[in-house]
Amino acid sequence: MNILEIIEKKRNKNELTKQEIEFFINGYVKEEVADYQVSALVMAMFLNGLTKQETTYLTLAMANSGEILDLSKLDKIIVDKHSTGGVGDKVSICLLPLVASIGVPVAKMSGRGLGFTGGTVDKLNSIPGYKTDIDINSFVKNVDNIGISMISQTINLAPADKKLYALRDSISCVENISLIASSIMSKKIASGADKIVLDVTCGKGAFMKNIDDAKLLANEMIEIGRLVDRETVCVLTNMDEPLGYAVGNNLEVIEAIEFLKGSMPQDLKDVVLELGSHMINLAGLGENLEENKVKLLENIKNGNGFKKFVEMVKNQGGDIAFLQDVDKFPKAKYIKPVVAIKEGYIYEMNAEDIGKVACNLGAGRVKKEDVIDYTVGIKLCKKVSNKVLQGECLAYVYANDVKSLELSISKLQDIIKIGDNKIERLSTIFGICR
Amino acid sequence: MNILEIIEKKRNKNELTKQEIEFFINGYVKEEVADYQVSALVMAMFLNGLTKQETTYLTLAMANSGEILDLSKLDKIIVDKHSTGGVGDKVSICLLPLVASIGVPVAKMSGRGLGFTGGTVDKLNSIPGYKTDIDINSFVKNVDNIGISMISQTINLAPADKKLYALRDSISCVENISLIASSIMSKKIASGADKIVLDVTCGKGAFMKNIDDAKLLANEMIEIGRLVDRETVCVLTNMDEPLGYAVGNNLEVIEAIEFLKGSMPQDLKDVVLELGSHMINLAGLGENLEENKVKLLENIKNGNGFKKFVEMVKNQGGDIAFLQDVDKFPKAKYIKPVVAIKEGYIYEMNAEDIGKVACNLGAGRVKKEDVIDYTVGIKLCKKVSNKVLQGECLAYVYANDVKSLELSISKLQDIIKIGDNKIERLSTIFGICR
Repeated sequence: MNILEIIEKKRNKNELTKQEIEFFINGYVKEEVADYQVSALVMAMFLNGLTKQETTYLTLAMANSGEILDLSKLDKIIVDKHSTGGVGDKVSICLLPLVASIGVPVAKMSGRGLGFTGGTVDKLNSIPGYKTDIDINSFVKNVDNIGISMISQTINLAPADKKLYALRDSISCVENISLIASSIMSKKIASGADKIVLDVTCGKGAFMKNIDDAKLLANEMIEIGRLVDRETVCVLTNMDEPLGYAVGNNLEVIEAIEFLKGSMPQDLKDVVLELGSHMINLAGLGENLEENKVKLLENIKNGNGFKKFVEMVKNQGGDIAFLQDVDKFPKAKYIKPVVAIKEGYIYEMNAEDIGKVACNLGAGRVKKEDVIDYTVGIKLCKKVSNKVLQGECLAYVYANDVKSLELSISKLQDIIKIGDNKIERLSTIFGICR
Repeated sequence: MNILEIIEKKRNKNELTKQEIEFFINGYVKEEVADYQVSALVMAMFLNGLTKQETTYLTLAMANSGEILDLSKLDKIIVDKHSTGGVGDKVSICLLPLVASIGVPVAKMSGRGLGFTGGTVDKLNSIPGYKTDIDINSFVKNVDNIGISMISQTINLAPADKKLYALRDSISCVENISLIASSIMSKKIASGADKIVLDVTCGKGAFMKNIDDAKLLANEMIEIGRLVDRETVCVLTNMDEPLGYAVGNNLEVIEAIEFLKGSMPQDLKDVVLELGSHMINLAGLGENLEENKVKLLENIKNGNGFKKFVEMVKNQGGDIAFLQDVDKFPKAKYIKPVVAIKEGYIYEMNAEDIGKVACNLGAGRVKKEDVIDYTVGIKLCKKVSNKVLQGECLAYVYANDVKSLELSISKLQDIIKIGDNKIERLSTIFGICR
């Protein structure tokens, strides 16, 4: 077997075998196959497509390229949750303590990654003292003791995926459903999940810009899940505008805390209940999805969800005083409103554009080495379809320097679009694929 | 402009502009565009195709990536001749002195390159004393003085093509008509040709295995020629079996000398006369192709072609005693026959397979650094369709060690196929494209 034959085979639209895909991935990781050869093969895959079977072999080869987290000693069904990404996405922080309070074991490892507003780990790190870089034994022990632990990726999960993703990014080969699906699923398999609930975001602030692509991606991941015996459910959600009101690290943590205390923005609530009801189902703790949603709401009302969150934060060294009183969180130096210049109805708040404003304020990373400013961000006062009066506040900008403050206000003035007629918001949940 | 957008554009089947193609080629040569990015772009070009206009821009960008030979001071129409490659191809050595003897100026620069049996330069180098690495001023002066000079590529012609070809070879992206056409034409343009006659070989020992592909390639090169104002004529020739009888460096030079002295194998004669008649025409020295062929044959008979060859060899320091008496050429240590094991008719002598045998004997290069043995090779005694008797000699192997001698004899026994029925040889000239 040699890489030239493999490239030629895919170039000629033939299906690659398991052995050929493993040869390519293993050779790439060991640097026996050159990156320019991988580039050519990836472009051929992009243009000629991958069969479901090829995508599955690719997924497994990437999952097996590094450590595989073994959670079998917990002796429970581990349901992992993952989102394909969005702006204002604090779902994990709201959802996971809540399902844990119902008895779904949560062993969540999040990548730090790049993004407009940091990842879940960055958001959790904005709670003083909270440790995300704990070792695997303590992580598993935490889950065993209190039913939940949320940490950063401390082991070398699917290094082939990491390498391949960086290459794809540098050769315009990112937007391919099969390659995206195998990238996501390889990490989920490596992180020890038995079953997987995926939040497939769709819209202006998401990877998938339209519902058709989102469905294709969902079905591809479900099929991989089926072939590797990891039952997978995908929830297709709206990501045209930011989720909830807060965009930025400690602003989002505060919103999540308020959520668990009962103050739930409608769109965030819809997503949390939908994903949660499927997690409970897959964990074997309730087949009726509507009943599961009722249970989740009960555990908001009776405070059990919030209590579980407090327990987790305490267990990992975080200062729970901040959870009891969110005013303790440090604030940005400047907090200034964006004001409506006319009366009307909001018809668009492009999530990606808002994410970029937050990133420019310092809430996200452009390069891996960038340091995140937890205090900056945007707090929306309105959602799409809301009526606004002239002079009314549309959003608050949280900034630590005047220049980025002024720039952000002026940008948001353009991004938050006001029209004469009221438009109906699209529903938050577009559908379920399973 | 950036390379990611260019890759994406070609990936999405859109036509690249002149500026974009120049950006890619210049960036690649300057190493500002990474080879893995070029790989992805080349695979996208391979799979999505290039328009005639794109192919032309690519050709010019590669031609302009290095020095352009300026032959304008000769103040004559320079007609270049090039072959897409074959086995036993000594056409340049027979043809160029012959057309020079009629008044067509010949300024021929040949690449050393890789190949089963060395290039024209290697063949010429087997004449003791003949200098192929002379500087450009002397080269041009030679052409001016005696009407012909044949040298090796002493300037940096189309370095982008060299780089791109090596990359294509390592990512299974060689066999694409547009990429092959632009590679050939870029070198011809850089080497100062006003008009071009191309021998597009076709068959088992050629790059193009079938006549349809050969025609596509020919038409692509003619179109590039038209767009860059270099009139181009392609002669499609048969390369199923070796051309002539000799395969190997000094064996081929000897065959070329005998040719110029009047001993012309039919297939070699057909190719030389066809290409020569077009060269004379393009040089403006005779529009009637049949009359041109008569002139060429006259200059074989009256010895003017041979005289011109002697003049050129002398002018470049070669020992012309070897031309007068070819028995002076050193001979391989072992010369042994391959004997027919049965009576019948030869129906196949795969040129590529015979080329490989010659290469294994030491006649060609696998790596750039390999040293060629001028004395080894194969001399056929028969051509396809010839009758053979049991025990009759099919070919002689010229070797310098017993092991490769024995191996070559046994391989040729398989390669030279004898059947019961006489088959008709295909004609040597498949057609003309212009």
